[in-house]
Amino acid sequence: MKKSLLIVLLASHGILFGQNKSDSIMIKNIYNEVLTHSPIYENLRFLCKEVGNRVSGSTGASAAVEYTRQLMLKYDFDTVFLQPIMVPNWKRGAKEILKITNSKKLGTVELNGLALGNSIGTGAKGVLGEIIEVGSIEEAELLGPKIKDKIVFYNGPMDPTLLETFSAYGQAVRQRSAGASVAAALGAKAIIIRSITQSLDDVPHTGSLRYDPKIKQIPAMAISTKQAALLSRLLKDQADLSIYMENYAEMLPDLPSFNVVGQLNGSEFPNEFIAVGGHLDSWDVGEGAHDDGSGCMQGIDVLRTFKALDITPKRSLRAVMWMNEENGGRGGKGYAKYSTSHNENHIAAIESDRGGFVPRGFTSSGSDQQIKTLISWKSFFEPYGLHDFDKKGGGADIGPLSEQGALLIGLLPDGQRYFRYHHTNQDVFEAVDRRELELGSASMAGLVYLLDKYGMGK
Amino acid sequence: MKKSLLIVLLASHGILFGQNKSDSIMIKNIYNEVLTHSPIYENLRFLCKEVGNRVSGSTGASAAVEYTRQLMLKYDFDTVFLQPIMVPNWKRGAKEILKITNSKKLGTVELNGLALGNSIGTGAKGVLGEIIEVGSIEEAELLGPKIKDKIVFYNGPMDPTLLETFSAYGQAVRQRSAGASVAAALGAKAIIIRSITQSLDDVPHTGSLRYDPKIKQIPAMAISTKQAALLSRLLKDQADLSIYMENYAEMLPDLPSFNVVGQLNGSEFPNEFIAVGGHLDSWDVGEGAHDDGSGCMQGIDVLRTFKALDITPKRSLRAVMWMNEENGGRGGKGYAKYSTSHNENHIAAIESDRGGFVPRGFTSSGSDQQIKTLISWKSFFEPYGLHDFDKKGGGADIGPLSEQGALLIGLLPDGQRYFRYHHTNQDVFEAVDRRELELGSASMAGLVYLLDKYGMGK
Repeated sequence: MKKSLLIVLLASHGILFGQNKSDSIMIKNIYNEVLTHSPIYENLRFLCKEVGNRVSGSTGASAAVEYTRQLMLKYDFDTVFLQPIMVPNWKRGAKEILKITNSKKLGTVELNGLALGNSIGTGAKGVLGEIIEVGSIEEAELLGPKIKDKIVFYNGPMDPTLLETFSAYGQAVRQRSAGASVAAALGAKAIIIRSITQSLDDVPHTGSLRYDPKIKQIPAMAISTKQAALLSRLLKDQADLSIYMENYAEMLPDLPSFNVVGQLNGSEFPNEFIAVGGHLDSWDVGEGAHDDGSGCMQGIDVLRTFKALDITPKRSLRAVMWMNEENGGRGGKGYAKYSTSHNENHIAAIESDRGGFVPRGFTSSGSDQQIKTLISWKSFFEPYGLHDFDKKGGGADIGPLSEQGALLIGLLPDGQRYFRYHHTNQDVFEAVDRRELELGSASMAGLVYLLDKYGMGK
Repeated sequence: MKKSLLIVLLASHGILFGQNKSDSIMIKNIYNEVLTHSPIYENLRFLCKEVGNRVSGSTGASAAVEYTRQLMLKYDFDTVFLQPIMVPNWKRGAKEILKITNSKKLGTVELNGLALGNSIGTGAKGVLGEIIEVGSIEEAELLGPKIKDKIVFYNGPMDPTLLETFSAYGQAVRQRSAGASVAAALGAKAIIIRSITQSLDDVPHTGSLRYDPKIKQIPAMAISTKQAALLSRLLKDQADLSIYMENYAEMLPDLPSFNVVGQLNGSEFPNEFIAVGGHLDSWDVGEGAHDDGSGCMQGIDVLRTFKALDITPKRSLRAVMWMNEENGGRGGKGYAKYSTSHNENHIAAIESDRGGFVPRGFTSSGSDQQIKTLISWKSFFEPYGLHDFDKKGGGADIGPLSEQGALLIGLLPDGQRYFRYHHTNQDVFEAVDRRELELGSASMAGLVYLLDKYGMGK
């Protein structure tokens, strides 16, 4: 009994029957295929340069749906379909105006403001107000009534000492997501935020804010870290500095859109699904190359690699392009709802939404047993530079699949460069390296291979 | 006896007396200092943009000597000095001309040729000849007499399936370094090589060739991988394709130059030295940002960090900017000769010459015991993403210090992007990421801290 238990345990970890060796060889084949023949870089170029950016509800988003659908048809996946959802339709409108109006030192100072996603507009009358600087949401709350009728300038930096840049982002991003409603509740007219990046440069970063439905909506813009530093310096010498803001953003009624799904049918367990992909929408600046064109193209490339190597999956594999991660998450929710209502069973889902950088591991979210199994596969990936298998996390779009008991997995690329590009006009094809992008694709394909072969319990 | 041996062993690995914890704290302080306050990125900007490229013997190289000397004086290192050496003085001269003269399909085809470093020129008369393609040195040797009076086109690619790009480089680079003499021995007029890179793009890569002193020197140029692919395609349809080459490179008499050295004096063992740095010369295209401005600025930053944190080293620490790594290695040899003749004892030397990318570990070359000690420190660096401590290697400039019994260490950054930029006009400041550069600096400073504190036996 004990011996048979041991055999079961060893077999489940792929240690018996030479599986380790044959799996290593297959994973090497997968990396070789991607590094030698993958069209992923050219596919990403097309998405970035021919389709361009693709905020939910835009013509770019529609074109991206059609491009990825056709791409997967071209690769002759068993099924390619569009899964309908409704998405928010936020439009930036005409270019923002932002300026300091009364600097004793510099006179009028034009700033490069970029409205935050979901922000309302000021309209043609604009907003003029005295500016007041805070370092965080908490500091704004402490200032309380002093904020009334002011424009609040959130100037909290990302912590440069955190090696995990996403942790630093997580701390700093609250001023972007919640800052407007916190300030509005205290009577502020508008907010400006320091861009959420560790870089010191001239690039403003957009990104979504969430208005508290119980609180008045006020306009919100980001400025670059260099302009934030300038504004802060000027404020030190002159407390009554005023700013004029003008922008034409607006939230229009929801529009129909789609998740795009390609599938290889499972030969043994067709109702067990492994989903892999990224989100197809981006912000309306740049080209959404790292965020998240890379993840989408990698998802497609995983299935393409299976076909190229003539691997017939036992489970059904899906490349999924989720729509609307950036400002609503409708695609992720819609996909899980669709899937559950069709009695599908996702055993695992992998999302790549941290950029097309060199992979360092996988994050995960699931049962202890699931995570233990994932970690037991670490040695397959260490030769390719992936060492991090113990960090928590999944992905915004795959989160809702936890209701099916799926192991949620995030591709974890090196994060040092991500926030230079994130949500800016710098997130373009040229910022992505071919080999780094390919290695992410190959790493996910290798993991899908193991998930498909061995399955994944609950 | 056994117990005391155990204590010695444990102490030497920093396990007793809470050393592990206090060392971890100090290493965290070092990373925090660099990630928060390091001027390294601005220093590299200056070296790239104000000094520019700096091939040995050029005015750029002289300016770089003076810039780094002044920078270390500004940081108030205990000693800053120039260590004289003689360097080769190779000049590219006027822009190369390279064209296919008789394509039946395309007529005359202009190519973007870039003479290899150390190449002779053709002079104004140029060289015209039929072209013959080979995939490697070995293939050229097999062709033997068929090469006579031809221009040999070495078109061997870098192997994309090797995760360690430097291994793929090591395999492919022989056609650049030895290809001219191999072809000349068989009667060839000149050579053209496919650029040594994994990228498929329009950028030619230079780099040194070595002429066999017993064989006639012939001119040598690189073309981009895209133009190599074009040339190869045209040759498939037309075997008698001819090429015209013209260039004005020449090797002039040696010139005086310098290694630049900054030092913090050791308080307990002043004659035990730890050297850290990179090479100050670059090629004459681009700005030598990754190769090797990054390594130089990191070396200086290691000593700056010690001063900023008020750490008095027990051993003498040296930031060394070696001159002439690219086409002679005179600086590395001269530095070791100078040091040995002054009865100095280098216990370790760290070279950063694989680009300013995110660090993944350290390579090493030394005695088994030395390497064992280095590997015992791995756990200090794993929290910062450095996992690779078992790869062999040191650095071209520190190699000669092996005669002093020094442990030779190479910073091992992620290598996926390096050969996009290597020896090209693309190796510019903008290709370097601030955080990646800083993390390399901090990693070396952490290692120097341990080497200084615990020493390093032979």
